[in-house]
Amino acid sequence: MALAEPCRAELIAVGTEIVIGQIHNGHAREISQELAKHGMYVYYHSAVGDNEARIIETFSIASRRSNAVIATGGLGPTQDDLTKEALAKFLGRRLVLSQEALAEVESYFKQRGRPMPEQNRKQALVIEGGEWIPNPNGTAPGQYVFDNGVHYFLLPGPPLEMRPMLQNYVIPRLVDHFGGTRKLVSRILHFCGIGESDVDARIADLTCKDNPTVAPYAGEGEMVLRITASGPTEEACWELIRPVEDELRRRFAPFIYGVDDDSLASVVLRRLQETGSTLAVAESCTGGMLAEMITDVPGSSAAFVGGVVAYDNRVKASVVGVRAETLATHGAVSEPTARELAEGVREKLGATYGIGVTGIAGPGGGTPEKPVGLVYVGLAGPRGSRVYELRLRGSRAQIRIRSCKQALWRLWQELNGDSDVGRDKTGRGEKG
Amino acid sequence: MALAEPCRAELIAVGTEIVIGQIHNGHAREISQELAKHGMYVYYHSAVGDNEARIIETFSIASRRSNAVIATGGLGPTQDDLTKEALAKFLGRRLVLSQEALAEVESYFKQRGRPMPEQNRKQALVIEGGEWIPNPNGTAPGQYVFDNGVHYFLLPGPPLEMRPMLQNYVIPRLVDHFGGTRKLVSRILHFCGIGESDVDARIADLTCKDNPTVAPYAGEGEMVLRITASGPTEEACWELIRPVEDELRRRFAPFIYGVDDDSLASVVLRRLQETGSTLAVAESCTGGMLAEMITDVPGSSAAFVGGVVAYDNRVKASVVGVRAETLATHGAVSEPTARELAEGVREKLGATYGIGVTGIAGPGGGTPEKPVGLVYVGLAGPRGSRVYELRLRGSRAQIRIRSCKQALWRLWQELNGDSDVGRDKTGRGEKG
Repeated sequence: MALAEPCRAELIAVGTEIVIGQIHNGHAREISQELAKHGMYVYYHSAVGDNEARIIETFSIASRRSNAVIATGGLGPTQDDLTKEALAKFLGRRLVLSQEALAEVESYFKQRGRPMPEQNRKQALVIEGGEWIPNPNGTAPGQYVFDNGVHYFLLPGPPLEMRPMLQNYVIPRLVDHFGGTRKLVSRILHFCGIGESDVDARIADLTCKDNPTVAPYAGEGEMVLRITASGPTEEACWELIRPVEDELRRRFAPFIYGVDDDSLASVVLRRLQETGSTLAVAESCTGGMLAEMITDVPGSSAAFVGGVVAYDNRVKASVVGVRAETLATHGAVSEPTARELAEGVREKLGATYGIGVTGIAGPGGGTPEKPVGLVYVGLAGPRGSRVYELRLRGSRAQIRIRSCKQALWRLWQELNGDSDVGRDKTGRGEKG
Repeated sequence: MALAEPCRAELIAVGTEIVIGQIHNGHAREISQELAKHGMYVYYHSAVGDNEARIIETFSIASRRSNAVIATGGLGPTQDDLTKEALAKFLGRRLVLSQEALAEVESYFKQRGRPMPEQNRKQALVIEGGEWIPNPNGTAPGQYVFDNGVHYFLLPGPPLEMRPMLQNYVIPRLVDHFGGTRKLVSRILHFCGIGESDVDARIADLTCKDNPTVAPYAGEGEMVLRITASGPTEEACWELIRPVEDELRRRFAPFIYGVDDDSLASVVLRRLQETGSTLAVAESCTGGMLAEMITDVPGSSAAFVGGVVAYDNRVKASVVGVRAETLATHGAVSEPTARELAEGVREKLGATYGIGVTGIAGPGGGTPEKPVGLVYVGLAGPRGSRVYELRLRGSRAQIRIRSCKQALWRLWQELNGDSDVGRDKTGRGEKG
């Protein structure tokens, strides 16, 4: 068997509502993910409004650089629905009525006890030489045409219509043409406590390779490395990925907290459950965000007891038990307050671990001694207490998110018995 | 004055993580919306991976059809960050070190008490003849270049870095160039307590008009109507908008809680401050999200005292004071528990108003009697207590968000003395 050329896919979303920002182009991500699962790469996404000339131009560009083009939207019955018409014009082909497609559109209305409006007839037109794709969930059949080395698929915009047509028709057709030849597998490693540039400086020997590729990208308060391999089988891909993952773990062991769909909250919760431990949190500047990140994980109630949002100083004192003297002497944003928040919430809520967060998220409230971005994270547990001082930059939202991530990260280290690592000048730890 | 040509904008998102579907290209929608607010249209979105040749090709296509090109992503310090390099090559311009930009990148590290890694130096390179755009929230300065009739803007990918640079630099610059001919003014009305289809059915006479246009769109747990007018001056636009806004207020008065950048949390906080009142919340299923939404508003500490995340029943009892008998007889997800959560947190935290939320967010934990989506919102205040029963649909995340929005919405009604309105089948209210 001759080796097929690899799939170079391109996605086109058609609709003025997308380019003016009224709705969001969710199909791009979803279709890319589906194709990747089957070893096929998407190289371009584009979106264009309901304008025939611009849709034609977009198909023309795609035809020169891609061999699989999946367009979504613009297959409805109105004058604004132009995708099929534009592709037919671009390919110089006629639109012909398909009796079979017409019967499907008519049956859709019949099932609802309504006559088919005349304008829906145009949905049964098929590009000459192509095929129509059944749509069990709507009136707009899809289209498939192969022309000059390029496979074109047109699918309707509504997600509940598009999805089964992608699964049942487009993917099998593409796998038939391009699949079988190569699989694509990605492994994601999640890092915390180390900057993107620090990681990058130590992986130049890995990022320069072609297979597997290693690519870093930064999240908010953490970062991710993606290892992607292609090979004839999934197992062959994993054989390429494993040694690279092992090597990355050798270099960055203390900073890698999870893989694939893990989050800091999910790995912390898992470890708490494994060790039969529980957690309670007392938050000032993060105002509930830390508890929210934790309870966002389904099943979090197994290890998360609860929390106190101690915004007002009286709540810090009355509910969590921070001493009035501590607040008066050191202030709400201080190491002793963070410690007493952690210890107090641990005791009052009866948890194995307590976290206390207090700081200045801005935009107001900063002073020369205590600037915006100064945050203390207290951690109390069976082995005593620690407080970490953070100096964060950014907007109110960034400072809050990063404070939460740092708190979870410090607890994760504590749970792994290596809470001495990862302390740099931005977060010093002290024994309580 | 010669008439300027209209803005024809194009957005390019750079990043392999986008085209393989790992992350979602949220910038496209956001930037399109921002430009539209200022009367500028976006005609194309594209996304391309971290590959220099393909990025160059994408700039080349954009340069032939657009006069404003905004690219996001690929400005980091790593070898994979290629956007600036690609644009420089495409334009045939050199990259030169900007001492000013270098000082900014260095100061970013200095504030964190760390030396700047050598590789971050490349972030201070500027395309010859262009300008760098300050980034107060990260190490990646942006870039602006004008070449052969096209305005190019390069912005970093992380949303919290990109957003202020778009607002403070890109939009004013584009308005300067393209904004003179015709103004576009939008007025946003925020609705809660009524569905999109119910609103839509009663505004057909307004949505069919061209100027101003009236467009509804659904948010999570609330909805928005945007009125957009174009005219020779801003005042001319407002004269078109005002009668339409007045008419909408006549039709939907009880459901319109705010305008423009208002959020449910911000209007509630403002009203609390105006009346010298304070708020405390006790959350079970929303797990901190309600407190987080409130404290996301800068200055919220003036009226928000704090909250308790009462995830575990023992916390409901010991910290908030829900009676053991209530929990045993009615269960944690019940009207009496919601009431005692609201009353208890109000009393314990010494606030004017107390909110209690308890429910089943899913995906697990539902029963035939208490299905996923059943949520009780308790509201306690000087005039007594009420409990609202909600039956929500959707994912865990959606149920949590909608519960928070409903809680704020009920409090907003209470604060406006019209808490009898807006009760429909999904939320009945009862006097306590």
